[in-house]
Amino acid sequence: MVQKKVLKVALLGLGTVGTGVYKVLRNQETEMMHKLGCEVKIVKILVRNLEKAAKKVEDSSILTNDWESIVSDPQIDLVIELMGGLSPAKEYITQALEAGKHVVTANKDLVAVAGKELLDTAQEHKVDFLFEAAVAGGIPIIRPLKQCLAGNHITEVMGIVNGTTNFILTKMTQEGMEFQEALDLATELGYAEADPTADIEGLDAGRKVAILASVAFHSRVVFGDVAIEGITKITATDIRYAKEMGCTIKLLGVTRNTEDGIEAYVNPMLIPSDHPLASVNDSYNAVFVHGDAVEDAMFFGRGAGELPTASAVVGDVFDIARNIQFNCCTRISCTCYKDFPIKKMEDTYNSYYLRLQAEDRCGVLAELTKIFAENQVSISEIVQKKTRSNGLAEIVVITSRVREGDFQTAVKFIRELKRVEKISALLRVYQK
Amino acid sequence: MVQKKVLKVALLGLGTVGTGVYKVLRNQETEMMHKLGCEVKIVKILVRNLEKAAKKVEDSSILTNDWESIVSDPQIDLVIELMGGLSPAKEYITQALEAGKHVVTANKDLVAVAGKELLDTAQEHKVDFLFEAAVAGGIPIIRPLKQCLAGNHITEVMGIVNGTTNFILTKMTQEGMEFQEALDLATELGYAEADPTADIEGLDAGRKVAILASVAFHSRVVFGDVAIEGITKITATDIRYAKEMGCTIKLLGVTRNTEDGIEAYVNPMLIPSDHPLASVNDSYNAVFVHGDAVEDAMFFGRGAGELPTASAVVGDVFDIARNIQFNCCTRISCTCYKDFPIKKMEDTYNSYYLRLQAEDRCGVLAELTKIFAENQVSISEIVQKKTRSNGLAEIVVITSRVREGDFQTAVKFIRELKRVEKISALLRVYQK
Repeated sequence: MVQKKVLKVALLGLGTVGTGVYKVLRNQETEMMHKLGCEVKIVKILVRNLEKAAKKVEDSSILTNDWESIVSDPQIDLVIELMGGLSPAKEYITQALEAGKHVVTANKDLVAVAGKELLDTAQEHKVDFLFEAAVAGGIPIIRPLKQCLAGNHITEVMGIVNGTTNFILTKMTQEGMEFQEALDLATELGYAEADPTADIEGLDAGRKVAILASVAFHSRVVFGDVAIEGITKITATDIRYAKEMGCTIKLLGVTRNTEDGIEAYVNPMLIPSDHPLASVNDSYNAVFVHGDAVEDAMFFGRGAGELPTASAVVGDVFDIARNIQFNCCTRISCTCYKDFPIKKMEDTYNSYYLRLQAEDRCGVLAELTKIFAENQVSISEIVQKKTRSNGLAEIVVITSRVREGDFQTAVKFIRELKRVEKISALLRVYQK
Repeated sequence: MVQKKVLKVALLGLGTVGTGVYKVLRNQETEMMHKLGCEVKIVKILVRNLEKAAKKVEDSSILTNDWESIVSDPQIDLVIELMGGLSPAKEYITQALEAGKHVVTANKDLVAVAGKELLDTAQEHKVDFLFEAAVAGGIPIIRPLKQCLAGNHITEVMGIVNGTTNFILTKMTQEGMEFQEALDLATELGYAEADPTADIEGLDAGRKVAILASVAFHSRVVFGDVAIEGITKITATDIRYAKEMGCTIKLLGVTRNTEDGIEAYVNPMLIPSDHPLASVNDSYNAVFVHGDAVEDAMFFGRGAGELPTASAVVGDVFDIARNIQFNCCTRISCTCYKDFPIKKMEDTYNSYYLRLQAEDRCGVLAELTKIFAENQVSISEIVQKKTRSNGLAEIVVITSRVREGDFQTAVKFIRELKRVEKISALLRVYQK
């Protein structure tokens, strides 16, 4: 056992999560020696604006805007990267690893595209690279997958991994708001960023799905492999219709390890209202895991926020502190020892919800059902909702579990029907 | 890195969980080398009945009924104890640890009373002693508490940690069954054992609460410290009344780290029906954790069963395999470095539900409220349900959050009232 009494840490970034990490480490000061056998001390913080940052820390002499002074300091054992974005985060992390420093990050954008490269660099330099906070904030999920559930063949990981969109959908569901109104409220309350694109278009969730899939299936999945659709087209009408059918609409990230490859997608889906995920509301996140031994397990909690995300970061830092004490760094590093193909979205199987406006005349339903039949799409439910004042009937179709490609072909033909005015919504229905 | 290519394991017991571990290790055969850098091989299985056991394994030559042949075999690195009960499990585990063998167990009875002693013995002999499967079956909870959430001061752990009683209460809630009927069904379906005492009286849940409290609060809590009440007195009437008040009755294990000591108890409680635990049904378990950084987190899954429990056992075995490879055993051992007092149940604060039968005459309510007032018990709700055919009125009282001792004194006086025929139910109401 190496008796290192102080683990010296540099923090990159002092935004929301950075400030959280600073606070959590202070709150743990009296515990560390007992928990870890050493002290963890922030000795430098890289910030852009020294003056602004000075208000957030007790000793402003640890602030710097000079990365070189951190990476070249042999006293610094560990770097916590919380700047976000691809660059210069990637360069900084790479340089830190190459300098023999351990790295902890919450940067999902980066891990979802360059996880393998960074883990390889860490391995090469015999240091740890951990990223529990990159997925689902404070919720323990990476370590449970890599350790607690290591005795399983995981076949599915799915869940709600974006708090902003879950808040918006919750408001739409519970209070009948339309999308824009709910987004405005989320912005007002600080749940949505000034530019909400990454959240509402599903990109943020897609990054997390890529990371979860890689860890769960031991096979690399990157951001570009994930088929992504956001929630901007969801209307209060669809949420109401879903409710009438005993379902709730959630933005789900789904990844499955199937015989012919890995499926990975993010999109708004109908799930039965008695499914545990249906009652995960507001900005909460939850991840469902199915394994051949554990069956179903779910992990629920705060998917973002200052202290919850810092909880995950500090858990990683403490783990590395223990590894250093026991001289066993890289004990668990990259676990992608397989190389499965990624399935195209058109080859996945789902049940679908289609809402359209058509002329209210007999014959339309016959045309629709004919197109579906010709494309191997069997229908599970078809409801003519009502005739609108404009003389158009609203029709909702729920299909059985069918191939996406076949369904999309059918939809293409339906769009061309003269009597079909408009396809108002096309959603998937979650089925196990 | 120690290049040990085969980790040799002895299994003690080939009952439900033992058979599960056997299967899960076989299912992981092709994965192990990649995941762990070594193979994990069961080389001996201790059983009582060799003939019966022979039907469950491929190679019956690994079966033995001779413990000595296992503990004295220097080739065996790790012992998985799945016999259950205190003796001889404790002696076997102690001897194995003293012989330098790592031990994994699912034995909550033992860990809840002798956890510290066994962890100390392991530490002394520089071997690992892990018990993830002892709490909530397949659900990862011990490792998340010790690692992922290590940056938190955990203030509360509570949840549904017994599947049998949760199945019974679910049937009573959803189908209006009385306790005995639901217990009979649980027995018929294999959810309850022939002697269901440990489950229905809350003892099994109490053991898990002791272990969870010790791990979460870094301070030893043993089985005898937990105040325990089972579900045998719950009636369909109370479940119905609870529902009318927007609540569900669940057998909850609760432990809190408060300023004046640790609270630890198991009892049937009313929780709001919109609380995530209220929809954890059938034999599922779920554990809620509150920490100063992570806020609320919940872990949900199968709390028992062949393969789910084996999932947790094998997770521990794989962790030890990694520790052996990296020569870092005891990296995380006993984490009880504090010594908090245990609070008496009478000093805890809760809200209470009291149902009683009294003479249907004016004056009774006045007598009741006077006694409550004299004992510092303030009432939040009082409902006279109806007059029964026997001329007795049924009264339900919900108190505010009050001291248990004060409430129990009030109840003692109420019992003595001439006009009170019977106290039919006394339950606690979960409040954060």
